[in-house]
Amino acid sequence: MKTLSGLLPLLAFFSAPVLADRVANEPIKPIQAVQVDDPEKVALGKKLFFEPRLSRSGFISCNSCHNLSRGGSDNLPTSIGHNWQQGPINSPTVLNSSLSMAQFWDGRAETLQEQAAGPIDNPLEMAFTHTLAVEVLRSIPAYLDLFEGVYNTRDINIDHVTDAIAVFEETLVTPNGRFDQWLKGDDEALTEQELAGYKTFKEIGCAACHYGEAVGGKDFHRMGIVNQYATENPSQGRYEVTGDESDRFSFKVPTLRNVELTYPYFHDGAVWTLEEATEIMAYLQLGRELPEQDIDNMVAFMKTLTGEQPQIQVPQLPPSQPGTPRPIPFEND
Amino acid sequence: MKTLSGLLPLLAFFSAPVLADRVANEPIKPIQAVQVDDPEKVALGKKLFFEPRLSRSGFISCNSCHNLSRGGSDNLPTSIGHNWQQGPINSPTVLNSSLSMAQFWDGRAETLQEQAAGPIDNPLEMAFTHTLAVEVLRSIPAYLDLFEGVYNTRDINIDHVTDAIAVFEETLVTPNGRFDQWLKGDDEALTEQELAGYKTFKEIGCAACHYGEAVGGKDFHRMGIVNQYATENPSQGRYEVTGDESDRFSFKVPTLRNVELTYPYFHDGAVWTLEEATEIMAYLQLGRELPEQDIDNMVAFMKTLTGEQPQIQVPQLPPSQPGTPRPIPFEND
Ligand code: HEC
Ligand code: HEC
Ligand code: HEC
Ligand code: HEC
Ligand SMILES: [Ca+2]
Ligand SMILES: [Ca+2]
Repeated sequence: MKTLSGLLPLLAFFSAPVLADRVANEPIKPIQAVQVDDPEKVALGKKLFFEPRLSRSGFISCNSCHNLSRGGSDNLPTSIGHNWQQGPINSPTVLNSSLSMAQFWDGRAETLQEQAAGPIDNPLEMAFTHTLAVEVLRSIPAYLDLFEGVYNTRDINIDHVTDAIAVFEETLVTPNGRFDQWLKGDDEALTEQELAGYKTFKEIGCAACHYGEAVGGKDFHRMGIVNQYATENPSQGRYEVTGDESDRFSFKVPTLRNVELTYPYFHDGAVWTLEEATEIMAYLQLGRELPEQDIDNMVAFMKTLTGEQPQIQVPQLPPSQPGTPRPIPFEND
Repeated sequence: MKTLSGLLPLLAFFSAPVLADRVANEPIKPIQAVQVDDPEKVALGKKLFFEPRLSRSGFISCNSCHNLSRGGSDNLPTSIGHNWQQGPINSPTVLNSSLSMAQFWDGRAETLQEQAAGPIDNPLEMAFTHTLAVEVLRSIPAYLDLFEGVYNTRDINIDHVTDAIAVFEETLVTPNGRFDQWLKGDDEALTEQELAGYKTFKEIGCAACHYGEAVGGKDFHRMGIVNQYATENPSQGRYEVTGDESDRFSFKVPTLRNVELTYPYFHDGAVWTLEEATEIMAYLQLGRELPEQDIDNMVAFMKTLTGEQPQIQVPQLPPSQPGTPRPIPFEND
């Protein structure tokens, strides 16, 4: 015992330089595990994230389109919303979304809280109103108790709801993926192929846009810099927020964390495999036609960005009461 | 230590008669906790229960209509299925469904395994085919490994799928509710009102149909024995299975376990409160118009049938592969 613990500082001394080097010098940074300051608020936010009564139908929750069994996405080209309406754009993952500079493909929400107000009263998504959503929650004593425990008031409003959801979302990070283990000094964490893929990823310029903790999420860039992207999706991206001609068809660089799980790819969800997405990126953004081996290596590397998925216990939602506004699943009823 | 453990057999001796008495003499029996024999099979069945890729759209899973956050039901009068089609009948809870003599309102499936084959290729529900569902699973190596671990074969078929789901469902029991604590001898577990409600429940005859571990699930009975039930729902219940005139409008007596969570009530899901459901039952099945106090007492009693909900960790579903058949969320694509 004595001998071993005497050795530990020495070991730390020898491995420290690798750690410091990689973490400091590589363009991708390891994801930090979250510190939960307010577990009650997180628990409330989790219930709300899984709460179908925030939708008109009583059927659709945040988790419907950001399924935490599926990398926080729905794995559909565009989402199914209220009344099976087709959404306009691919649903991005909620995992690590707190690490992005802004929310939505066009960055039109600055914070997670601002974002969370959107889907509830979006007629294509949950098709409800903030007033009714709050009325539902206010009618359920168990919810009032939870809100009171967290916000010291039973006079709840939509800002309490979106705050709790945002704080829950902040816990949805995925640390300790194999790539992060390598970053922190574990040379065994990656295979040669994966390392070769990462080398190419840096050398040809992917890391100029996909970098940082989220391996993306830090800038807007035009989709198709060297060559044009052909899509039927009408979104003009960032231009719709700024009206600035130079922002036309510019999108938030998506995170590549857990990208193995968040197919199909691109804002139109038109591409199903990482191989094809990589080939397209190289050709459109960098003007390169890559040999298959390079593509396979980069795909192998990107799969090492899959991290530990949040361990979520299925929440129990308190039952509606006689005074709770009822869901309207079908308009003819 | 010695003294205390010396006392234990004595304590057991004194409390045993109450336990034996109540458990033997009351019409309602306590729910037994499940013994999990094959945790790998349960884990696989859980993944499949949460698996939207068993549906044509890639959006609907068993858990969509039997939400384990909501007492294993969807809390809608009738369900939302593929393409937002309206289902024909109320979705019963999957909790404790292994304790019923048969599955579905009309008992047309004998076992949970037989039942589970139904929704996958029901055009109103998951709208898929068994062949395609199996093809999806076969295309995903991580699933093949799991099936091989459980069934010793990678040549999987729909019977493996429904067997694993059924074995997972068998774990969805809700023991240790307050009523069961009372049954097992804890006199403090129920309030006077709840005990009064239980007394009425037995005396006026509710327990003639709602009895056993599941407080129901053991017989078919006509809905409206003394007085008629008015509904727009076309189901003729058990008659549709037997063709026997005496079975017309006869339904499986639903479990009252967790009935607080499984609103709205009756096969047509037309009644939203337990108070109203109780009033209707008393009038239709027993020809009685009960004073409000009796109804409130019985409702208080029925809420003690809410048991410990299964503790479920959100499963992680393995990602689709390039060869995986793709979901068809919208027919125009
Ligand atoms: C019907 C599908 C649907 C529902 C329900 C839904 N979302 Fe989304 N979500 C989307 C789509 C599609 C986008 C992308 C929209 C865009 O960028 O214009 C999105 C974007 C987001 C983003 C931004 C992610 C990023 O990287 O830009 C977050 C965070 C988010 N949703 C959280 C939520 C929360 C919280 C709820 C529930 C209150 C919710 N969503 C409900 C489909 C949905
Ligand atoms: C100039 C910036 C830029 C460069 C360089 C770049 N990307 Fe991208 N990447 C983006 C943007 C912007 C998107 C989103 C485009 C869209 O959806 O319309 C994207 C999307 C992706 C996606 C899809 C992610 C998802 O969830 O939809 C992958 C995978 C990807 N990039 C990988 C790469 C690889 C590999 C390279 C190098 C060969 C690369 N990128 C180079 C900006 C860039
Ligand atoms: C679109 C909604 C929907 C989906 C999806 C769905 N169910 Fe059901 N489920 C129902 C409805 C409605 C009934 C009652 C049908 C009847 O009795 O005729 C039912 C009945 C059942 C029952 C019988 C319960 C009882 O007490 O009689 C079980 C068990 C069950 N479903 C399990 C499953 C499983 C397992 C899956 C997935 C393979 C599934 N369900 C998918 C709506 C759904
Ligand atoms: C003769 C048999 C019988 C008697 C007596 C009876 N029930 Fe029922 N009960 C049923 C049947 C059958 C149903 C399902 C009817 C339907 O859905 O159409 C049912 C449904 C219910 C439901 C709704 C459960 C659900 O999940 O939809 C409740 C609550 C209930 N009974 C309580 C009672 C109470 C309280 C009494 C006594 C006042 C009572 N029952 C007496 C047979 C009976
Ligand atoms: Ca995607
Ligand atoms: Ca019900």
